[in-house]
Amino acid sequence: MTPSLPTPLSLDVFTRAAPADLMARYEALLGRIAGQDPALNVFEHGSPDAERVMARVRELCALHPDPADRPLLFGVPVGVKDIFRIAGEAIRCGALLPPRLFAGPEAELVSRLRRAGAVILGRTVTTEFAYFEPGPTCNPHAPDRTPGGSSSGSAAGVAAGFFPLALGTQTVGSVIRPAAYCGVTGFKPSHGRLPVEGLVFFSRSVDHAGLFCASPEDAALTMAAVADAWTPAPAPQRPRLGVPSGPYLDQTSPEALQAFSAALAALGRADGDAPALTVRDAPCLDDIAAIAARHGDLIAREFHGEHAAWFERYEALYRPRTAALLRQGRGLSGEVLAEGRASCADLRARLHAAMDAAGIDAWVCPSALGEADKGLLGTGSPAMNLPWTHAGLPALSIPAGTGPCGLPLGLQLVGRFGRDPELLALGAAVRKLLAQHG
Amino acid sequence: MTPSLPTPLSLDVFTRAAPADLMARYEALLGRIAGQDPALNVFEHGSPDAERVMARVRELCALHPDPADRPLLFGVPVGVKDIFRIAGEAIRCGALLPPRLFAGPEAELVSRLRRAGAVILGRTVTTEFAYFEPGPTCNPHAPDRTPGGSSSGSAAGVAAGFFPLALGTQTVGSVIRPAAYCGVTGFKPSHGRLPVEGLVFFSRSVDHAGLFCASPEDAALTMAAVADAWTPAPAPQRPRLGVPSGPYLDQTSPEALQAFSAALAALGRADGDAPALTVRDAPCLDDIAAIAARHGDLIAREFHGEHAAWFERYEALYRPRTAALLRQGRGLSGEVLAEGRASCADLRARLHAAMDAAGIDAWVCPSALGEADKGLLGTGSPAMNLPWTHAGLPALSIPAGTGPCGLPLGLQLVGRFGRDPELLALGAAVRKLLAQHG
Repeated sequence: MTPSLPTPLSLDVFTRAAPADLMARYEALLGRIAGQDPALNVFEHGSPDAERVMARVRELCALHPDPADRPLLFGVPVGVKDIFRIAGEAIRCGALLPPRLFAGPEAELVSRLRRAGAVILGRTVTTEFAYFEPGPTCNPHAPDRTPGGSSSGSAAGVAAGFFPLALGTQTVGSVIRPAAYCGVTGFKPSHGRLPVEGLVFFSRSVDHAGLFCASPEDAALTMAAVADAWTPAPAPQRPRLGVPSGPYLDQTSPEALQAFSAALAALGRADGDAPALTVRDAPCLDDIAAIAARHGDLIAREFHGEHAAWFERYEALYRPRTAALLRQGRGLSGEVLAEGRASCADLRARLHAAMDAAGIDAWVCPSALGEADKGLLGTGSPAMNLPWTHAGLPALSIPAGTGPCGLPLGLQLVGRFGRDPELLALGAAVRKLLAQHG
Repeated sequence: MTPSLPTPLSLDVFTRAAPADLMARYEALLGRIAGQDPALNVFEHGSPDAERVMARVRELCALHPDPADRPLLFGVPVGVKDIFRIAGEAIRCGALLPPRLFAGPEAELVSRLRRAGAVILGRTVTTEFAYFEPGPTCNPHAPDRTPGGSSSGSAAGVAAGFFPLALGTQTVGSVIRPAAYCGVTGFKPSHGRLPVEGLVFFSRSVDHAGLFCASPEDAALTMAAVADAWTPAPAPQRPRLGVPSGPYLDQTSPEALQAFSAALAALGRADGDAPALTVRDAPCLDDIAAIAARHGDLIAREFHGEHAAWFERYEALYRPRTAALLRQGRGLSGEVLAEGRASCADLRARLHAAMDAAGIDAWVCPSALGEADKGLLGTGSPAMNLPWTHAGLPALSIPAGTGPCGLPLGLQLVGRFGRDPELLALGAAVRKLLAQHG
């Protein structure tokens, strides 16, 4: 692990800063980016435009002279995955296609961030169209390893202390996995909880917008600022977690399973009379292979639906894995759409029923199969994330220990659909327990 | 052929315009680009920045109020292949690698164009690192066909009337072939005749800078403005052309050979007592296969020399044909460099000797194997250009008839090393003869 790697920045470093301090923080941030991004490649376009950024910060300070009357994300610098449309910017989606194909009104979530006082620092590297062909971003913990994907630059940038908040998307495992690999908090809300209008869609039935930040508390603050009708949840009372044992969990590497068991042991440790939470085995996802196949077909078919005209014209510009997915989707009948969507709804109902039957409030499992893979040829496996994405349940990754190479591992918590505030409150409690006993 | 396609613009449309007319021409040009580039993809980055361009035109008019005292390329809009560094711009080289890898001082040739009064309109699409992986540019004569490469956007932009002048580079056939496919004039000067400093190099021993424009006369005017010690040559007196018959020429398609023969017949037609020029058969390049093999090894080895560190780190970001050339180069010993360079010098001497023996002033041959290939999966074959590039001789392509699908064909003239002005004077004469008799 790089000893000089900073802890991810928290939002209040910015939201509570006096104007003069805020300017100084931005100058430090821009200096850090200029110095380190050449090695990390967090931003798609090189460094942020310092002049434009500082002008926006000054404007914000002038707009909100009273520190008691600031919007929730006042002065927060944000990295935006290069697949959300941004006003006045040509986005590229990690692809070689003409950028004008992606033009359109600004993504609703980006506009909401602006209205909440955030500063859009720049566009962060995505894999090609948020699938598996990697970009140039390195893992800040080990430059010879992937940061994960597809939201590679957003996860790496929070880990490197370039910004305290970043947007990502998840269609299989594109938020939770890179958050785990990079040692930051990643939050994929319930399907539809954050607006996806203005994304260059991968698979409209499944695409989720998500966040990277320093803590579940910061994710909750961000959701309060940009999600509709957000009511924070209180700290949970002796929550009950279920481990989804069976063929799903068996995919994990022995090292990650060992760290997972250690984390569970830490969580179950008593802090007085009784442990603060309980963990029980709750076998589920016996049909994970069939779920994965249906998910794969659904996203392949929808992906081809988005790209059909572009792929016909610009086939040579697509990279091999992306082109292979498009060919798969082209060969599928429209029936897979209905089947896939029904499967999503069915899995959600089955998981809720399993939670009721086991008497648990959330699932707990590893965020990824193990540590970040070596090299930049791929972005790792999303297998630990696929079923929860398929079901549209809210998922959270928090850092939990390290693997055999000293690289971060993540603990994934998955809640009931729509219970996003409760999941973040649980995540905050779990994070505290891990800090005490982990 | 698209009936609405304009004749390529000549330089004097701009250099001689009154200031008010110049502004109007630019507005028309920018309007045409905004309307048509979405279908053609000439520019890498979308449309030129109209505000910046118009400001530069106003500045030029203010700097040179006296029309009699204008620099040679006053007000000429130029498209620059996205592999020449441009001050204040992040170039991309048709690649997915981080743009900052390509940063550096502006290319000398771009700076010379500016000093000669030209207006840099924008960066034009190149194939990946000027090799074979295509960009999104279409052929303006047939949108379902390649414009050729690697200088795809520069050739297509001159053909579409987006700009009267564009920069390209040629390491095998990247200027002459796209010029032929797009029906414009292409000029690849003698090796070293135009500066290559500030290029992202492909193969330093062989890279040539070159031009696209409407006529040999415009190429000569441009050379006078940007090449060192340029002395225009007078019109040639009864020049003698040689046809390089043998295995080299046998590669051409029957249709292209037929059009080539028709062009030669037109050139040989008498205009009074005697024809203005003579054409004779001058067999040469018997060892074209060996020359091509040495050229391929030389550029593969030098290409890997440029990219070794990037390829090691970012292998996944290179497209398949480019990666294959880098692997070829990686596997070659340093000896191919000396062998390749010796072969270049040897071929130049042999071609000069053959010209002496045959009593010819220039070679004449087709510019490409035939019409532009269908589809955008490739950029066509540079086989007709390879030996002249290997020898570093100046080469010129002028439009000469059409093929079976009504698409442009080019006539390639190749002169003695260093006799660039003479070649352009010959090209102007040949162009007039083709217009009279073709």
